[in-house]
Amino acid sequence: MHMCLIRLDQVNRKPEQMPYYTPLDPVRFLLRSAMIYRDKTAVIHGDRSFSYETLADRVLRLANLLIHAFHVRPGDRVAVLCQNVPAFLEATFAIPAAGGVLVPINTRLAPPEIEYVVQDSGASILLVQDEILPRVSTTVRASTKLIHIADYQNRGDPLCPYERLLQETETKLMWKDLPLTTDENAIMTINYTSGSTGKPKGAMISYRSIYMLAMTMCIQAQITHSSKYLWTLPLFHCNGWDFPFALMAVGATQYMLNKIDYGYVWKLIKEQGITHYCAAPTVQNELCHHKDAVRLNHVVHSFSGGSTLPNKLVRRLNSLNVHVTQVYGLTEVTGPAILSYDDGALSQHPKEKHLDLFSRQGYNILSLDQVRVLDQKTAKDIKPDGMQIGELCLVGNTTMRGYFNNPEATKKAFREGYFWTGDLAVIYPDGAIEIVDRAKDVIISGGENISSIELENVIGSLEKVLECAVVAGPDDKWGERPVAYVVVKEGHTITVEEIIAHCRERLAGYKCPSKVMLVKSIPKSGTGKLQKNLLRDELWKSHKRRIN
Amino acid sequence: MHMCLIRLDQVNRKPEQMPYYTPLDPVRFLLRSAMIYRDKTAVIHGDRSFSYETLADRVLRLANLLIHAFHVRPGDRVAVLCQNVPAFLEATFAIPAAGGVLVPINTRLAPPEIEYVVQDSGASILLVQDEILPRVSTTVRASTKLIHIADYQNRGDPLCPYERLLQETETKLMWKDLPLTTDENAIMTINYTSGSTGKPKGAMISYRSIYMLAMTMCIQAQITHSSKYLWTLPLFHCNGWDFPFALMAVGATQYMLNKIDYGYVWKLIKEQGITHYCAAPTVQNELCHHKDAVRLNHVVHSFSGGSTLPNKLVRRLNSLNVHVTQVYGLTEVTGPAILSYDDGALSQHPKEKHLDLFSRQGYNILSLDQVRVLDQKTAKDIKPDGMQIGELCLVGNTTMRGYFNNPEATKKAFREGYFWTGDLAVIYPDGAIEIVDRAKDVIISGGENISSIELENVIGSLEKVLECAVVAGPDDKWGERPVAYVVVKEGHTITVEEIIAHCRERLAGYKCPSKVMLVKSIPKSGTGKLQKNLLRDELWKSHKRRIN
Repeated sequence: MHMCLIRLDQVNRKPEQMPYYTPLDPVRFLLRSAMIYRDKTAVIHGDRSFSYETLADRVLRLANLLIHAFHVRPGDRVAVLCQNVPAFLEATFAIPAAGGVLVPINTRLAPPEIEYVVQDSGASILLVQDEILPRVSTTVRASTKLIHIADYQNRGDPLCPYERLLQETETKLMWKDLPLTTDENAIMTINYTSGSTGKPKGAMISYRSIYMLAMTMCIQAQITHSSKYLWTLPLFHCNGWDFPFALMAVGATQYMLNKIDYGYVWKLIKEQGITHYCAAPTVQNELCHHKDAVRLNHVVHSFSGGSTLPNKLVRRLNSLNVHVTQVYGLTEVTGPAILSYDDGALSQHPKEKHLDLFSRQGYNILSLDQVRVLDQKTAKDIKPDGMQIGELCLVGNTTMRGYFNNPEATKKAFREGYFWTGDLAVIYPDGAIEIVDRAKDVIISGGENISSIELENVIGSLEKVLECAVVAGPDDKWGERPVAYVVVKEGHTITVEEIIAHCRERLAGYKCPSKVMLVKSIPKSGTGKLQKNLLRDELWKSHKRRIN
Repeated sequence: MHMCLIRLDQVNRKPEQMPYYTPLDPVRFLLRSAMIYRDKTAVIHGDRSFSYETLADRVLRLANLLIHAFHVRPGDRVAVLCQNVPAFLEATFAIPAAGGVLVPINTRLAPPEIEYVVQDSGASILLVQDEILPRVSTTVRASTKLIHIADYQNRGDPLCPYERLLQETETKLMWKDLPLTTDENAIMTINYTSGSTGKPKGAMISYRSIYMLAMTMCIQAQITHSSKYLWTLPLFHCNGWDFPFALMAVGATQYMLNKIDYGYVWKLIKEQGITHYCAAPTVQNELCHHKDAVRLNHVVHSFSGGSTLPNKLVRRLNSLNVHVTQVYGLTEVTGPAILSYDDGALSQHPKEKHLDLFSRQGYNILSLDQVRVLDQKTAKDIKPDGMQIGELCLVGNTTMRGYFNNPEATKKAFREGYFWTGDLAVIYPDGAIEIVDRAKDVIISGGENISSIELENVIGSLEKVLECAVVAGPDDKWGERPVAYVVVKEGHTITVEEIIAHCRERLAGYKCPSKVMLVKSIPKSGTGKLQKNLLRDELWKSHKRRIN
């Protein structure tokens, strides 16, 4: 068995291929690592673990299965609807290795939403985890071939259908025979946006984009062969921010995690020496305030995205020896696009300014060529004074090729050769970007723009506040006024008046909330983002809706 | 002045450029770092140092100078003949930024060799350091425009012509106006081979090759914004193994070093906290045995290339807290191509095997797609048994586009779509490569192949031996027999008989040297490689020469 793994990377070259060109294909990371780190642990899930050799073998089997039993042909879409189980990771490499296009689906979607993504992508095969199967409609069941996956964590568990299929598959095609891409600009994955303002759209991401982002994340997240990554971030979210590829490139170890159990997460961090994890601020918050939270003996690198981390949470993470980086990203640019100031950048500034600088989004990653903040009307650069507001525009090697089967939306998304994010930002004299708001989350009150994020940060800085969301509510006089939804920490109390007074001390009067609602929780999307649209819908249901 | 540096990376895009394509251009690393790490130290030379902002400004001035005063047009070759002074580093970025092609010249070449490289490359401009100027022929002086550079290390030194020119240059063109490449496959540098068996050949290296290698070196050499790199390796050698670009990508600090003074090197390592350096084994040897050598309090990452490091030298380096990686590389593949087993790969093996495994060349770097060891006649893969010998062949994104103006040599260098290195290698069952010899260094004695490297390693393992070179000498009976040239450590003595007896204990009789010459030194090339061809020429001068 060992012999068949030797120099796995000797994939056949096409006669017309120039010696200086090999398509930038992240599947090849697995081949190289399976050779160099053959007996090293690649994946751990519960009490099961796979070496790189076993992982490569399983991926090869799955690719053979897809080609021979499921008749996948180059360009066919294969959807995956799973939690963070090893099968998902395997599919992430096997689908492109078989020539297919990976379509990850958010596991928290409702049946009609799942149906929409499957139908829009035209996926003919669906890898689905048993737990989510009840949400797969009869229409989807009729139009796709299903591969059932169980969360098979314990060595003693009975074989699930997926495991049985893998075991029974003959590897007729070896790595060198597989239809690996010959064009780095071909589509490797289609990732659906959350679609908070309409139907989800499928961002087409190329092999080159994923390869370049993986290299960048290795460098900027300092991932090495000794890294131990914990999967607190869903793999379906922008292909897990591209970490599966970065980790595979260097021969690191990945700890799968199908559901977040904070006690178990702390156990893994402490006992297994986890070095890296990614999570939304809400997860960071829960993690930090869990009863098992202690200052760690080793540094853990954490990447936080979805919304801005409140300063007090950054301080709390640092006190636990968690070194955090803020990530701004979008499905349309393969995931991470802007990272907060690193220690090298911060070292140029006095220490007392670090937290404030850190709360900005920061600078584009190495492989995203440009970020620009452009005036929405003139498409000219705004003044980099930290005051003037424009729309954040991105361009470069990690930009999507367009929306699948949706030339109209693609045309709307690009203007002047840039991808327009819909996020409003300022640019500081040092070139750093700060997102001021989602274009649609800005509150326009009597002609003045109020940043919902600014107000959330002020309310969130109160010790007793766990979470806060600010949205525009209808107002007869001003058009819109800020309404704050506030969740108070368990065992604490705070009054609406205290909150308003706290804002008045810190902000211009017109920016302070007209209404504060103390609530038990705030609705969140599958990726942990605040669903402000639901709050807005509620407030505006008897009014003529603002346009967004 | 600060304001003009903001978002330097906003280079104008061409209207036809797709949003998902930005040419992989390492010049852009400087622009991004000059923005993020503006006040951070980029370059240190003696008591001068430049921030990233100053460096970017100097590069911009030099690019303007080249375009306006020296009329560089896209594709024009600009040669550089300097030691490791800041001007060389600046030219490395300014020449491509001005649309030119960089031609670095080995500073140790004789006047006719320098003339050959200048003429062959068709360089019309030569940046030359005063010390080397006497070796620039009148022909070269007549055919090129010279820019004089002095080793300007002390703040008090009078301005050299280069410094004066920079100061006087108006930056009419800003970064966004410069003719940065729009094609990543265009030629960025032409690097001349050492030409030990004929005239040097100019390997044409593309922007993409250098970019990909730089990303790879950041990852595999673990370079970050806090790295401090010492320039013990000449910058002219494969563009300093691509380190200028890797270091620039992450915002690290580079310590220039025009001449190697081991006392000064130790002072920098200890007092400045150098984290990385590259050097040939001969330099590593001198460094290790210098009187100031002590075990360091911090880990230094060292990359050693040119020939294999003897085990005892590896042990000595490790004992000083220098973590060493062996590099196998070639001008034709942009520099580093194969790196020795890293700690992750070694961790799969018992500790007592580590040194032996480490003495192999190891595995291809991340961005070099494939290494293959092919039978020289059939061009088929040899058996990966660690025994069968074939020729090492390379292919992938760091492979040169060909030899400049030399289609014949280019045609000879590539066969079956691979670059044939001329090095003989075996491949082990774990996929690792070991170079057995240069094709032309193998000794063919009575039909048996004897590896000169194997014999050198055995003799080199003697405590009293400083250095050793083994070449084929003429023999009437056997055709060729190994002849060993041995340099004994200062203050030690050893006899020829002792050396032969040591070999007989460890090697088959036919592999042992027929002749041992105790010598004071062994001739070396500008890059520290043993010049075995000179030894062979001497031995064979009255014989019909073997073909090579």
